[in-house]
Amino acid sequence: MTEQRAVVRAHANIALAKYWGKADIARNLPAVPSLSLTLENMRTTTEVSFSSELTADELELGGAPQGGKPLARAAKLLGEVRALAGIRTFARVRSHNDFPTASGLASSASGFAALALAAVHALDLSLPIERVSALARAASASAARSLFGGYVELGASAESAARVAPPEHWPLRMLVAVTSEAAKDTGSTDGMQHTALTSPYYPAWVADAPRLFAEVKAAVLAKDFERLAPAAEQSALAMHASMLAASPALVYFRPATLAVIEAVRAARKRGVAACFTIDAGPHVKVLVEPQHVAALKQTLEGVEGVLRVLESAPGPDAALLREFPR
Amino acid sequence: MTEQRAVVRAHANIALAKYWGKADIARNLPAVPSLSLTLENMRTTTEVSFSSELTADELELGGAPQGGKPLARAAKLLGEVRALAGIRTFARVRSHNDFPTASGLASSASGFAALALAAVHALDLSLPIERVSALARAASASAARSLFGGYVELGASAESAARVAPPEHWPLRMLVAVTSEAAKDTGSTDGMQHTALTSPYYPAWVADAPRLFAEVKAAVLAKDFERLAPAAEQSALAMHASMLAASPALVYFRPATLAVIEAVRAARKRGVAACFTIDAGPHVKVLVEPQHVAALKQTLEGVEGVLRVLESAPGPDAALLREFPR
Repeated sequence: MTEQRAVVRAHANIALAKYWGKADIARNLPAVPSLSLTLENMRTTTEVSFSSELTADELELGGAPQGGKPLARAAKLLGEVRALAGIRTFARVRSHNDFPTASGLASSASGFAALALAAVHALDLSLPIERVSALARAASASAARSLFGGYVELGASAESAARVAPPEHWPLRMLVAVTSEAAKDTGSTDGMQHTALTSPYYPAWVADAPRLFAEVKAAVLAKDFERLAPAAEQSALAMHASMLAASPALVYFRPATLAVIEAVRAARKRGVAACFTIDAGPHVKVLVEPQHVAALKQTLEGVEGVLRVLESAPGPDAALLREFPR
Repeated sequence: MTEQRAVVRAHANIALAKYWGKADIARNLPAVPSLSLTLENMRTTTEVSFSSELTADELELGGAPQGGKPLARAAKLLGEVRALAGIRTFARVRSHNDFPTASGLASSASGFAALALAAVHALDLSLPIERVSALARAASASAARSLFGGYVELGASAESAARVAPPEHWPLRMLVAVTSEAAKDTGSTDGMQHTALTSPYYPAWVADAPRLFAEVKAAVLAKDFERLAPAAEQSALAMHASMLAASPALVYFRPATLAVIEAVRAARKRGVAACFTIDAGPHVKVLVEPQHVAALKQTLEGVEGVLRVLESAPGPDAALLREFPR
C-alpha cells in the first residue's frame, strides 16, 4: 500500500462586492467581479489521503460520511488533480468546519479551497497558487478567493482569484450575526441559475456590479470606510433584490436579518463605522472598525432572533498543517 | 355669506398589480399600469365647505389643523375644481380616516378621492366620474382608483382609472396585518423619484410591470386564485426589489413584514388560498378566499410584531353622505 497525505486549513471569506451569477455554467466562471475579506476565525480543516487500497473517493464532513452531490463535487475536483498528477488512485477526504455548514456562511468557499490545496500537496504537485485557486474555482467560484488571506478579488470570467491587499493592510473586524443553524432551502448554485432565468433584474445586476466592485476596491485600497459602507451595502442589497424579483421569489432574508440591518443602520447614525453584507442565507455579516467591536457585538447580541455573534479579524492564506486536529 | 357643502365617503384601495414610478412628474401620470381592490372597511370621510367668509383654504385631518405640504396638495386640487366652476371661493376641508394615516395604508388614495368628489359635489358640477378620477389622480395616482368600487385599473400614463369588475364579481377578503402605527420615513412620491433616479433596476421594473398587470387582470377576470397569487406577489416583491437596489436603499420591510410573508407562504403550502401584497410601508395585505378568513386571521394575529389585523370585503364606489359623522 502507498499513501500520500496532506492536511490543509483554509478560511472562509465574505464578499464585500458580491458574486452572484455565472458567465459560463459548464466552466463555472463568474458573471460579475467580486471582492472579499478572508476571515481568521472561520476555518475548514481538510485531510486528503490518496490510497491504493481505495476503490472510490470517500468524503467525511464533520465526522459524517457523505454521498450524493457533496461527494460528487469533491470527486470531480479530486479527478482533476489526479489528471494533473497522471494517477488514478482514489482519496479519502476528512473535513471539519468550526462554523455552521451550508447555511450561507461560506463553508463551500473554505471547503473547496482546502480540498484543492490538500489534494495538490498530497500528490506533491508543484503548481502556482493561481492554478490551485482555479481548481477550487471550478468547484465553487467563491472558493477561489479562500486560497488567499486578506482582501481578495475574483474578476468577471476570471479563472483564479488574486490578492488585493494582505490582512494587515486594514485590520477591520467582521461580526457574523448567526440567525439560524439550519441549512438553507436553496443552494447558491441553484439560486443563481433561477435568478438568471427568471428575474427581470438579472441583466441590470450583471451590468451594474462592476461599478460597485470598482467602488469597493477603491475604498479598500484607500482604507476609506465611509466610501466602503454604501457600496458594500448596495452590492449586497442589489444581489438580494435580483432574487426577490425572481419567479417565484428567492427570499433569503428572515425577520432577524432585517432586524440586524436596522440595528447596523441605527449604529452608523450614532457614529459607529459599521456596514452590513448578506450572502445567500439569513445571517448578517457586519464589517466594523476595531474600536467599535465590543459595543457593536453587544448590540447585535441583543437583537431578537440573533443566536450568537462570531467575531473575526482578516485571515491568512490557506496553508498546510502537520496533523488533522481532533 | 354663501356656503356650498358636500360630504363624501371614499374607500382605500390596495393594488394587486403595483403602481410605482411616474411617466410624467408634472402631470402625475403613472409609469406602469396597476390594478387594485377597493376595501369596504378602510374609509375616509371628507366634508368640503366652500365659504365666502374664508380667506384661504383650510384643512383638518382627524381633528388636527394641517399646514405645509398636506394643505398645499389639498389646495391645489381645490384650485382645479374652482377653475372648472369659475369661482374663487376658498374651502374648509374636514377629513377623517378610520385607519392609520400616511403609513402605507393607502390613506392618500381614499383621501384625495374623497376630496375630489366632495369638492365637485359641493359646487354642483356635473362631471363624469372619469373626470373626477382624473382630478384625484393629479393629486395622488392611486386616488384615481378609489372613485370606483371593486376591482379597478389605472393604465400607464392614463388620466383616469376604470372599473375592471364590480365588488360582487369575486368576493375575496383582504386582511391587513398592521405592523406599525407610525408614519413612514419616506413618502411614496419621494420614494418613487429616488428609485427612478438611483436604482439600476428601475427600467426593468417599468418594462416588466405590464406583463404582471396583464397576468393579474386575467386572473381577476377569471376568478383564478392560483393564477393571481404568484403574479400579485411578484408584482409587490419586484416593486420592493427596485427600491432595495436604490442608492441608498429604500427598505420599507420590517422584521414583522417578513414574518407575515413567511406565515402566508406556509399557509399556502397547507392549502390555504392566500397571497400577500405590500405597499410602500411595513404592513402586509393578505388576499384570501372567504372560507379561510377566520383561520388565517388567527394565524396572522399570532405573528410576532403584528399589532392587529383589519379585515375587509371588496368595497363600493365613493359616494355622497348626508352628514359628516361624529
